[in-house]
Amino acid sequence: MIKLQPQRVMIKLLDRMVELVRKGDIAHFIRRAQDFEPADLADVLSALDEQERVAVVQAMPPELSSQALAEMPEEAHAGETLAALDPGQAADIVEELDDDDAADMLRDLNRNQQEQILSEVEDRSEVDRLLRYDEETAGGRMTTHMVTVSDTATADEAREEIRRQAEEVEDFYEVFVVDSDRKLVGFLPFKDLVISRPERPVRAFMTPADIFVTPDLDQEEVARLMARYNIPSVAVVDEEGRLLGRVTFDDVIDVVEAETTEDLLKFGGVSPDEELAAGWRPAVRSRLPWLSVNLATAFLAGGVVYLFQHTIQHTLALAVWMPVIAGMGGNAGTQALAVTVRRLALGLIPVDVFTRVVGKEILVGIINGLVMGVTVGTVATLIGQGARLGLVVFLAMTGNLMVAGFAGAFIPLVLERFEIDPAVASSIFVTTFTDVCGFLLLLGLAGMLLL
Amino acid sequence: MIKLQPQRVMIKLLDRMVELVRKGDIAHFIRRAQDFEPADLADVLSALDEQERVAVVQAMPPELSSQALAEMPEEAHAGETLAALDPGQAADIVEELDDDDAADMLRDLNRNQQEQILSEVEDRSEVDRLLRYDEETAGGRMTTHMVTVSDTATADEAREEIRRQAEEVEDFYEVFVVDSDRKLVGFLPFKDLVISRPERPVRAFMTPADIFVTPDLDQEEVARLMARYNIPSVAVVDEEGRLLGRVTFDDVIDVVEAETTEDLLKFGGVSPDEELAAGWRPAVRSRLPWLSVNLATAFLAGGVVYLFQHTIQHTLALAVWMPVIAGMGGNAGTQALAVTVRRLALGLIPVDVFTRVVGKEILVGIINGLVMGVTVGTVATLIGQGARLGLVVFLAMTGNLMVAGFAGAFIPLVLERFEIDPAVASSIFVTTFTDVCGFLLLLGLAGMLLL
Repeated sequence: MIKLQPQRVMIKLLDRMVELVRKGDIAHFIRRAQDFEPADLADVLSALDEQERVAVVQAMPPELSSQALAEMPEEAHAGETLAALDPGQAADIVEELDDDDAADMLRDLNRNQQEQILSEVEDRSEVDRLLRYDEETAGGRMTTHMVTVSDTATADEAREEIRRQAEEVEDFYEVFVVDSDRKLVGFLPFKDLVISRPERPVRAFMTPADIFVTPDLDQEEVARLMARYNIPSVAVVDEEGRLLGRVTFDDVIDVVEAETTEDLLKFGGVSPDEELAAGWRPAVRSRLPWLSVNLATAFLAGGVVYLFQHTIQHTLALAVWMPVIAGMGGNAGTQALAVTVRRLALGLIPVDVFTRVVGKEILVGIINGLVMGVTVGTVATLIGQGARLGLVVFLAMTGNLMVAGFAGAFIPLVLERFEIDPAVASSIFVTTFTDVCGFLLLLGLAGMLLL
Repeated sequence: MIKLQPQRVMIKLLDRMVELVRKGDIAHFIRRAQDFEPADLADVLSALDEQERVAVVQAMPPELSSQALAEMPEEAHAGETLAALDPGQAADIVEELDDDDAADMLRDLNRNQQEQILSEVEDRSEVDRLLRYDEETAGGRMTTHMVTVSDTATADEAREEIRRQAEEVEDFYEVFVVDSDRKLVGFLPFKDLVISRPERPVRAFMTPADIFVTPDLDQEEVARLMARYNIPSVAVVDEEGRLLGRVTFDDVIDVVEAETTEDLLKFGGVSPDEELAAGWRPAVRSRLPWLSVNLATAFLAGGVVYLFQHTIQHTLALAVWMPVIAGMGGNAGTQALAVTVRRLALGLIPVDVFTRVVGKEILVGIINGLVMGVTVGTVATLIGQGARLGLVVFLAMTGNLMVAGFAGAFIPLVLERFEIDPAVASSIFVTTFTDVCGFLLLLGLAGMLLL
């Protein structure tokens, strides 16, 4: 019922839950918690500090706390909470969890903590197997819980098998058909399963297994595949084609959201590992390295100005135009960069159009540069700085916006070619490039035309 | 089969298809097209120019061309192609399309073109209804094709009903239960539907209808809801609770990807409507307005320098430090901005932590500022510019990075409070702020300490 509340009401409801914990009224909290969706309860847990969260989870029945912990946006926090519990109690929660959620939480703990908890878990084999895969791959995202039927079954036998297996599997959107070797041979769409006559062999109405992935495939590729072919869950198979598990659409939406966050942070010059809600300490650690790189490149721009000090002394008005030319170049470069980085991320740039992409951005830069250049040239002349200085700022602006278009497209394309993530660092390189070229153009042209 | 090819092989296969069209061997193209997935065929259509695309679509059977057009990433191009066809042929394609895909394509045409095509469509009522909704809402994204059963049915009657309706509905992940007024009362999870005994009433095992949306809800909100509650399709109902349609997970993944593109473009100062593959003309149109705004703000920074011209004349080294102080401020501001904009986009900032968010960014700015400030102060002193200038650049750098932290968090939070999209324009405001404050600090302090 709670889900239908407008967001403001929802936030109030969650706040009241947090208050209950802070007042120490855990019993009341747990009574009310039964009415909440796991995702909402997870928000409440996120709002608590570590100590409060552990106290609440200790008091909650494991079937409730496991679901809420699994939906917490910060897996690391859920893992920490698990580690802070008595190992037997943590094991109760792990047993209630889907195997993939359990593996995700345990992955953030050290080997020792993992072992303490898992040694108390009744059947740890599935979680152990998942822990072997890297988190950001199909293997790391998959669950081994799924419904499978034999390729020799009939429709009615398949339905009987589903009845038997469905108890353990929470959500499923199709049934996998495997041979006697557990190799994947096809899928049963639900529709056909409901419709088919009892004695019809499964082989006759299954969809052949033509979309699947291997466990080492990057999660972003998995997401793109599922979105592209509109499939709610994709099978994960080993090299021999044996079915290992499945990745479902809800994990994929989470992946797409997480990658979006990473892309924007990288674009802004922040380490993609910086948690959004992180405190000041990790934020400083994540940002200082990029600022240091930027400082090194800023010295380059400063060096160019140093070379032209006597030009500035001669025509002080140039100092006024420096931030204008450099700032506009940085802005235009960032525009070209955003478009190019996004095209690369979506795989929209085939190899052979490299020069066409760069050429378009240079052309856009020239045209925008001419418009902006005429504006600043006119302003400079009108405020009495003289037509010659007007000509200098016109040429510098036009040139720098052309350079910006070139750098904004060329730099990420080259980084990608060398298999360096173009979203990282591109923006520092592009703005350095436009700063340096902007000053060279402005001060160099002034040296030629004004001195 | 084709889907399993590694990406390089896939691109070759698609290239060969494009070649077939360019050689005019349409018959061969169509024979091979039967083996392709719609999404792959859509890539081929995207790679063709408008004229070639129309020629191919004209020759393709409508059940094939409709699927490929529906999967094209640029809905506008699919719409143009439709408009270029003979209205009768376009109508054949519209009839093959899912109603939501048809509406998406037609939405990009003018009223006249829509009417020409729709007047030839046999049953246009569903498409007409969908065309009334704004594209970026639940109504604009929903399909009216779904499977519904009466709340008075038994499990066996429900299965019979599904058998009857399933012919027309391509993919479905659950069945909706409605009362005699067509009001939504619940969902039938597939699992329970397969498992339930024949005479069991639907009401006894359905899930109550506690998650649904209204047609005017923004598509991003719909996506967040589905990801949050892990549901593969969500019901859309009118104010009386009557079932209108459903939005499915594959549309939602597309929405999340599209919003990611928009966010990155806005962050880079590009109009979110700029198509990634757009030519230079629309690119100029999309970017020039932002550059003009940026020029206006750049004049502000230039104005500050103008006020301090005599200080620069006295200590020319200040001109060298100007781009360093301003550049670092811009960079640090963008870092804080990226984190804050993303937190806002994900709804992670409750109202009451406004000051805590800003406070954290100011603190991060001070610490990073001290580290960078000590570095530049030492450099200035060591290269013989004197300890006093060293002190000035130290203070200016520290102060500007503190200001950057403040601006990077405060500006987007305020824009959001006034319901202005914080991703747009924030970055221009933040860098203007750091430019102006950087120059004020550097040149103002120099005026006090050096003159």
